[in-house]
Amino acid sequence: MACPRHMLLLLSSAIDVPHHEASGGGASKGKGAILTVPARQEKGGMRRGMAIIDLVLRIGAVVAALAAAATMGTSDQNLPFFTQFFQFEASYDDMPSFQFFLIAMSLVAGYLVLSVPFSIVSIVRPHASGIRLLLLILDVVALTLATSAAGAATAIVYLAHNGNSSSNWLAICNQFGDFCQTVSGAVVASFVTVVTFMFLILLSAVALRKH
Amino acid sequence: MACPRHMLLLLSSAIDVPHHEASGGGASKGKGAILTVPARQEKGGMRRGMAIIDLVLRIGAVVAALAAAATMGTSDQNLPFFTQFFQFEASYDDMPSFQFFLIAMSLVAGYLVLSVPFSIVSIVRPHASGIRLLLLILDVVALTLATSAAGAATAIVYLAHNGNSSSNWLAICNQFGDFCQTVSGAVVASFVTVVTFMFLILLSAVALRKH
Repeated sequence: MACPRHMLLLLSSAIDVPHHEASGGGASKGKGAILTVPARQEKGGMRRGMAIIDLVLRIGAVVAALAAAATMGTSDQNLPFFTQFFQFEASYDDMPSFQFFLIAMSLVAGYLVLSVPFSIVSIVRPHASGIRLLLLILDVVALTLATSAAGAATAIVYLAHNGNSSSNWLAICNQFGDFCQTVSGAVVASFVTVVTFMFLILLSAVALRKH
Repeated sequence: MACPRHMLLLLSSAIDVPHHEASGGGASKGKGAILTVPARQEKGGMRRGMAIIDLVLRIGAVVAALAAAATMGTSDQNLPFFTQFFQFEASYDDMPSFQFFLIAMSLVAGYLVLSVPFSIVSIVRPHASGIRLLLLILDVVALTLATSAAGAATAIVYLAHNGNSSSNWLAICNQFGDFCQTVSGAVVASFVTVVTFMFLILLSAVALRKH
């Protein structure tokens, strides 16, 4: 063969190198696949676990918000008598704050039910950060709504229990004990919703940071 | 030459390819450096801009929270007369909800002042996501505190303005008009704080996602 030896060497090396590179690349790819897939799986698994906790907390918040709204909505009490100063029926309709409470907690419960599918999507695709961000922002809005309703209802319930001597507002819970008990239960359920929302936002923020 | 043409072609391509790769790699590296440094600067600049907006909003929230607390704290009104049913002095001390409002807004204002240095650090180092996450979580806690105080004070102010015929609670703003005006102003300032907090949390969440 008249082909010079160094050309052949070059040729063999030229053939070898891609082969080596190819096999090496394949090996390193395989090794990389072995090394990186568990890391990605571990990270994805942790974020999937956080998404599952998010779903569980969200369902708990749905239950708490529905309980608060339903308890407030069914807080009628009829008395067998009435005096000059007090009606014989107490209902959430009598207080604008309780009406706001019912509307706000119903809205929050509806939002929470609608957000469950998005939470499930973020379990299936743990690396989609847009859904996380959307849920976080809407959660903050719902948290504000639920907290303001809870605060307003708490102020009125406190007034109904204790009255206020400075402004001459008498306590009405002496007459309407069952009504006050029911409304207090609704307020407690709304605060459970608020605390659950804070944990939901904490989870979303941590998941966004680990992205 | 007895060397087959396809061997030479292979050889030339084998020689060419690394050379091309080397120069191409260098060129693409150089180009990549030209392309990525402005991208990083642009991204850092955008996040620095968001951090600056965060600082400005935070200072505005400090002003609003301090205004709410100070207005509520100075809402005394003395009347030149008193009747059988009403005291001749109205103050935030008379209502537990207003006391809670004052304490909560003072706490929020204190937290906001303490959080300004962290906001400045996140301007200097826009890529530190830990500070962002810390500020977001503490902002959510402060938002909840401010919102509950604002809701409770709003419920009482509404009652003071309008009264409630069902529970026989009379409106006291006929007697204490200045007191009611002052307290209403404090409530408005607290809602400004709440809205500012929501924008702060939105900014932090978007900055965390872009990390």
